[in-house]
Amino acid sequence: MDKVILTPLKQIIHPKGDIYHGMKKSDVGYDGFGEAYFSTINKEDIKGWKKHTLMTLNLVVPVGAIEFVVYDEEGKSFFTQTLSQENYQRLTVKPNAWMAFRGIGEHNILLNLANIEHNPDEALNIPLEEISYEW
Amino acid sequence: MDKVILTPLKQIIHPKGDIYHGMKKSDVGYDGFGEAYFSTINKEDIKGWKKHTLMTLNLVVPVGAIEFVVYDEEGKSFFTQTLSQENYQRLTVKPNAWMAFRGIGEHNILLNLANIEHNPDEALNIPLEEISYEW
Repeated sequence: MDKVILTPLKQIIHPKGDIYHGMKKSDVGYDGFGEAYFSTINKEDIKGWKKHTLMTLNLVVPVGAIEFVVYDEEGKSFFTQTLSQENYQRLTVKPNAWMAFRGIGEHNILLNLANIEHNPDEALNIPLEEISYEW
Repeated sequence: MDKVILTPLKQIIHPKGDIYHGMKKSDVGYDGFGEAYFSTINKEDIKGWKKHTLMTLNLVVPVGAIEFVVYDEEGKSFFTQTLSQENYQRLTVKPNAWMAFRGIGEHNILLNLANIEHNPDEALNIPLEEISYEW
């Protein structure tokens, strides 16, 4: 699917506490900085579907495990990936794709490094039932 | 101390999982985007002292509690603050200040939203004993 980029990230082990990379401005998928925020998702809860018309999302999971599902309505195709410290990658989601995510671990946090500031006018929300996906 | 800015951040409560603000490009303390990375710090361990000569740090603690100490050698003054979800603020540390931090909780993670990419040539490290502070 051309609406997503998956990029492996470095984890640097240190006896006092590790370093986990997130994003550099020279990285693939970087499209400017607008806002960084965290979203937590309870185990088994699902947030979505949401489609951003302008925002590029860059998603990193420093705690727990989160299953992301992206739906491209033009190509009628789904992309799914569970991110965690065990599968430590950055998921870039370009504008005009539907996205939903489910909490897998006991405590789950994502960081979104977005290219624009939050603006409710550029995002569409529809109920989970509106896009048929076997969760 | 004029080398630090402390900015309260919003926490938006949601039944499926909360949203924690990090930084917007229009925020006080934002000085461009270079890199975002996580650092964990074990309980009672201390990382420091480090002085960045070019990097402005923007520090947020989404998990656990971390005590930050900033030392301004020009003014011979210390600034200290423990950040956590209970005291959810962003700590901006401007270049040319010494910084060290200690893990307080069982699991502690900071996010640094830095204005430049990591570059070991712009940072100085000295042992903890070199700056006298009652931890």
